[in-house]
Amino acid sequence: MIDNRRMKPIPYELYYWPQIQGRGEFVRLVLEEAAAPYLDVARLPEDQGGVKAMLKLMRAGGDGLQPFAPPFLKSGELLIAQTANILAYLAPRHGLVPEDESSRVSALQLQLTIGDLVSEVHDTHHPIDVGQTYEQQRPEALKRATAFVKERLPKFLGYFERVLARREHLTGDTLSYVDLSAFQVVCGLEYAFPAAMKRLSPNLPSLLGLRDRIAARPRIKEYLQSARRIPFSEQGIFRHYPELDAAAE
Amino acid sequence: MIDNRRMKPIPYELYYWPQIQGRGEFVRLVLEEAAAPYLDVARLPEDQGGVKAMLKLMRAGGDGLQPFAPPFLKSGELLIAQTANILAYLAPRHGLVPEDESSRVSALQLQLTIGDLVSEVHDTHHPIDVGQTYEQQRPEALKRATAFVKERLPKFLGYFERVLARREHLTGDTLSYVDLSAFQVVCGLEYAFPAAMKRLSPNLPSLLGLRDRIAARPRIKEYLQSARRIPFSEQGIFRHYPELDAAAE
Repeated sequence: MIDNRRMKPIPYELYYWPQIQGRGEFVRLVLEEAAAPYLDVARLPEDQGGVKAMLKLMRAGGDGLQPFAPPFLKSGELLIAQTANILAYLAPRHGLVPEDESSRVSALQLQLTIGDLVSEVHDTHHPIDVGQTYEQQRPEALKRATAFVKERLPKFLGYFERVLARREHLTGDTLSYVDLSAFQVVCGLEYAFPAAMKRLSPNLPSLLGLRDRIAARPRIKEYLQSARRIPFSEQGIFRHYPELDAAAE
Repeated sequence: MIDNRRMKPIPYELYYWPQIQGRGEFVRLVLEEAAAPYLDVARLPEDQGGVKAMLKLMRAGGDGLQPFAPPFLKSGELLIAQTANILAYLAPRHGLVPEDESSRVSALQLQLTIGDLVSEVHDTHHPIDVGQTYEQQRPEALKRATAFVKERLPKFLGYFERVLARREHLTGDTLSYVDLSAFQVVCGLEYAFPAAMKRLSPNLPSLLGLRDRIAARPRIKEYLQSARRIPFSEQGIFRHYPELDAAAE
């Protein structure tokens, strides 16, 4: 008996909250640039997946290692969580990281630094309690956003700018998953903190140039215009609250 | 001419702030368990290293990738930053992670989840601004610590307890770097939040058992009693402020 399923590659299964880009977006960008077949499971109708399927997998027992939180990726029998870990797993399979050890170590180092920046962005609107809303921690958010925009944001972006000033891509001469993540972070920051980013932009020519080059890549361009790209919103990591953007002016 | 330096292995160079355990401690524990020769450069006298040597390396130009922040490790020509990245690099060289891909992916996933917990511990005393002291953000710290002790701490520790309930070590049957990091986190939490940890301890038999087994390993035991182990203090990540420990009572 011929197993017809072997005729085409088994798609990856991505699990992430269906309403927001969030940390799942870093994985989506790699899958899209790689033109890898994938199911965005929690966004499927309930009879094919949905949030219920995601939560069920998180709670499942058995021998495998459960994720602490989404996003996670199913690749064959492997269930992989933690954004940077997923990317470091996917990238070599799709030519999205150089092959030598030194480059791979550098790539993960940069990706984890991007992850630190993303966590700090999140905490500008949730400095006290992730279980409560932004509106319940507004005074503290204003203070944290002030420190973030004044000190942390220029420090992080200045670092990536210095790395990029010496090379075309963050890990050297060729595109890697880290460039895709940097693109997402710059776009997110421009959405959340337009005034702050406008002030910083004269100092970020290389980083903004990278953002433009990634946006112009055919598969990314098509993806960004598709319904698969969830819009930025005030439910995600990058939220536009004008009072936080103005905090450090 | 015989190069006598080739007779013994070149030591790793660890760079981290000399006064605190901090994130450097996760690297030290791996190097100590591996009995790997290393220099703790920033703790050396200024003529052999010191903080100046660390800051100089962070600012150095050239083709290499600079670290965003300590800790970083020099291994031959490689300069590696980001704690989890350093550990994932070191561990396979010293038998501190299983060889199969599935285990390595699981190990990094768990290590990154430990890193998330460590960041949240840090933010209990610095919820607003890392550039200011704890005393300048005490009201917000009290709020954040309350949410941390009530919600986040039991969630994180319950997760690791569930993983350990099914295996002897976090990545399976054998010791890995993740166990050493989990040991450090449990010790740090017991220092910083003794009352909260006492309340949670009946639900953490596997995790506390792991802590005891790691502490009893000959090289770790010797290390913990040596002058190389910097004591916990109120300058590090795990700080004992009784008011924060009592916040959720």
